[in-house]
Amino acid sequence: MNFHTRKWVKPEDLNPNGTLFGGSLLKWIDEEAAIYAMCQLDNKKVVTKYMSEINFVSSARQGDIIEMGIIATDFGTTSLTLFCEVRNKITRQSILTINKIVFVNIDENFNPVPHYKTEITYSQDKFKD
Amino acid sequence: MNFHTRKWVKPEDLNPNGTLFGGSLLKWIDEEAAIYAMCQLDNKKVVTKYMSEINFVSSARQGDIIEMGIIATDFGTTSLTLFCEVRNKITRQSILTINKIVFVNIDENFNPVPHYKTEITYSQDKFKD
Amino acid sequence: MNFHTRKWVKPEDLNPNGTLFGGSLLKWIDEEAAIYAMCQLDNKKVVTKYMSEINFVSSARQGDIIEMGIIATDFGTTSLTLFCEVRNKITRQSILTINKIVFVNIDENFNPVPHYKTEITYSQDKFKD
Amino acid sequence: MNFHTRKWVKPEDLNPNGTLFGGSLLKWIDEEAAIYAMCQLDNKKVVTKYMSEINFVSSARQGDIIEMGIIATDFGTTSLTLFCEVRNKITRQSILTINKIVFVNIDENFNPVPHYKTEITYSQDKFKD
Amino acid sequence: MNFHTRKWVKPEDLNPNGTLFGGSLLKWIDEEAAIYAMCQLDNKKVVTKYMSEINFVSSARQGDIIEMGIIATDFGTTSLTLFCEVRNKITRQSILTINKIVFVNIDENFNPVPHYKTEITYSQDKFKD
Amino acid sequence: MNFHTRKWVKPEDLNPNGTLFGGSLLKWIDEEAAIYAMCQLDNKKVVTKYMSEINFVSSARQGDIIEMGIIATDFGTTSLTLFCEVRNKITRQSILTINKIVFVNIDENFNPVPHYKTEITYSQDKFKD
Repeated sequence: MNFHTRKWVKPEDLNPNGTLFGGSLLKWIDEEAAIYAMCQLDNKKVVTKYMSEINFVSSARQGDIIEMGIIATDFGTTSLTLFCEVRNKITRQSILTINKIVFVNIDENFNPVPHYKTEITYSQDKFKD
Repeated sequence: MNFHTRKWVKPEDLNPNGTLFGGSLLKWIDEEAAIYAMCQLDNKKVVTKYMSEINFVSSARQGDIIEMGIIATDFGTTSLTLFCEVRNKITRQSILTINKIVFVNIDENFNPVPHYKTEITYSQDKFKD
Repeated sequence: MNFHTRKWVKPEDLNPNGTLFGGSLLKWIDEEAAIYAMCQLDNKKVVTKYMSEINFVSSARQGDIIEMGIIATDFGTTSLTLFCEVRNKITRQSILTINKIVFVNIDENFNPVPHYKTEITYSQDKFKD
Repeated sequence: MNFHTRKWVKPEDLNPNGTLFGGSLLKWIDEEAAIYAMCQLDNKKVVTKYMSEINFVSSARQGDIIEMGIIATDFGTTSLTLFCEVRNKITRQSILTINKIVFVNIDENFNPVPHYKTEITYSQDKFKD
Repeated sequence: MNFHTRKWVKPEDLNPNGTLFGGSLLKWIDEEAAIYAMCQLDNKKVVTKYMSEINFVSSARQGDIIEMGIIATDFGTTSLTLFCEVRNKITRQSILTINKIVFVNIDENFNPVPHYKTEITYSQDKFKD
Repeated sequence: MNFHTRKWVKPEDLNPNGTLFGGSLLKWIDEEAAIYAMCQLDNKKVVTKYMSEINFVSSARQGDIIEMGIIATDFGTTSLTLFCEVRNKITRQSILTINKIVFVNIDENFNPVPHYKTEITYSQDKFKD
């Protein structure tokens, strides 16, 4: 799995306790996963359908750099399942993992349509980080 | 369960497909759940520890009004478990439910501490919506 | 009057003096009042027309939870008048009140049209908080 | 009165009806007025205490350029009263006026303190726009 | 050159080191320059084409007031060149200067078109600040 | 050069003409470059000192996915020089390049200090994309 997008934890990302606001983190993950799904499925019309349980293992603080890793784990007819890990870029400590984020490939009318993809074609993921 | 906080879906909340961005919705839920937890536990130091799986049942569009309902379902020694539903305020159609969002009650050093609460004390929730 | 929407005062909501930025608060109030007006008038096309004077009685600080209460006080032919109070959710101390926020019911061309409503029909407001 | 700060109405500033969100406008005004007060009183510790009634005369749309004009109208012992007008920069059509926005000069402990100013000393305002 | 738009450096504008985030500053400059170009060219369809090198001379901190000055320095057939300076409003210390920001006047299809302007017609700039 | 961070162009990132707002793009670049500098210099205290000229070669539209590539090109005693390219992730069309972004390594008092780095140590960059 490669880790692509990074974030620098800024004051606007903090909760009132001074740690990274969990909601901001979930927003970043959803965007990163959607980008991965769009690239793998060659379609800009994808929707988040499901997320499996989320364990918040550790937190991050102002000034930390975090990175998000995503990899496709299952190709359905109209769906794509991703695995996600977020970690501290410097210490490599895990912040959270999500085993399954499922996207559905849709058409202009928001109906599911087959994507005809069966394996990872997204080149950077051929190199391990 | 009462539905308190409402949101008006504005252009800044949309994904490029013109529907409510799932990440924005998760951010709103995490804030609303944290507020509920802080009120129930009488402590501003709470952290999100766990979210169970999330099914995105339906979406929302620009101009829709959505509302978020939260209720406490289990009181642990240092934890509090909440149930969450988000729905369209006008049509009452469910957008998503999360069976368990677990918060932990912490002290100044971010260590878990007992909260000594065993039941819902938060008055508005005595009235059904 | 019921208090529905809550906000957790986060670093992004502060002015440089470390208290809640008045402009952020006014933005939150306008959204909450517009939601109330749209629900009462069964119409998503409403515009803010007038706000009466605003006294900033007390402020809020990072980590505070505030709540906003709105109630309809007058039904005109094309207008709706609301009363608004914002308070600290925990201490119940008033932060500000606005005696009149007037919305106008409009059609697709932004012209005022009658709404034919004469009383509060919005169920939660039948219960006092 | 001079008009200084301008804003370009972008998608993130719109309400779901496609016009400038009133709450965003109030947030901009409060910042601009605070800046004016800090400059006039030579003190970064000022707080908004009062706003007189607001008439929303006309609206703005995506791509419009608006400008905000502020002028001091009264110097109290610890307070400063401002007049504010917002207008479309190109058409000069008024969007709203606020007759009185009152700021209070405070010390480190948030107590009102005399500012010893009795007239406009802020040089640009000597030239009419 | 006149300095029009001001900004109050708030917590949401800071980098994790507690100084003004350079990226936020560049975003403010681009908006202010675009507004100036639209006013000078009497056209809302303008695009940023080029920025010359940027020296970050000094920084700003939370609570500082900064102001941005722009002046047209060259009128091409379809382009307009601006000079920009950002400074601390109170101390007048320069924060950065950009010698050339070039905008292009475009039509509905995003093609460059002549603007037929040859001099500054924007009245406030006749008065020195 | 590797391309790490990606962005999905959302409604909140657009200028009123419906294309990616240049200011938003500059804000994203500055954050990505700062992250790269902090990783290469093993120091969270770095400041942007200089950016060379910027040519906006092409734009992006709502729903586009863009990616940002950064590589270190020169190691000074207290400074680090980066090269940056932004391109459309799908079409690989260049959006802009910046030949030099210079960061300075600072200490707690914001004074430049030697970083003792002379080559790229940041592992992902050993693989070409």
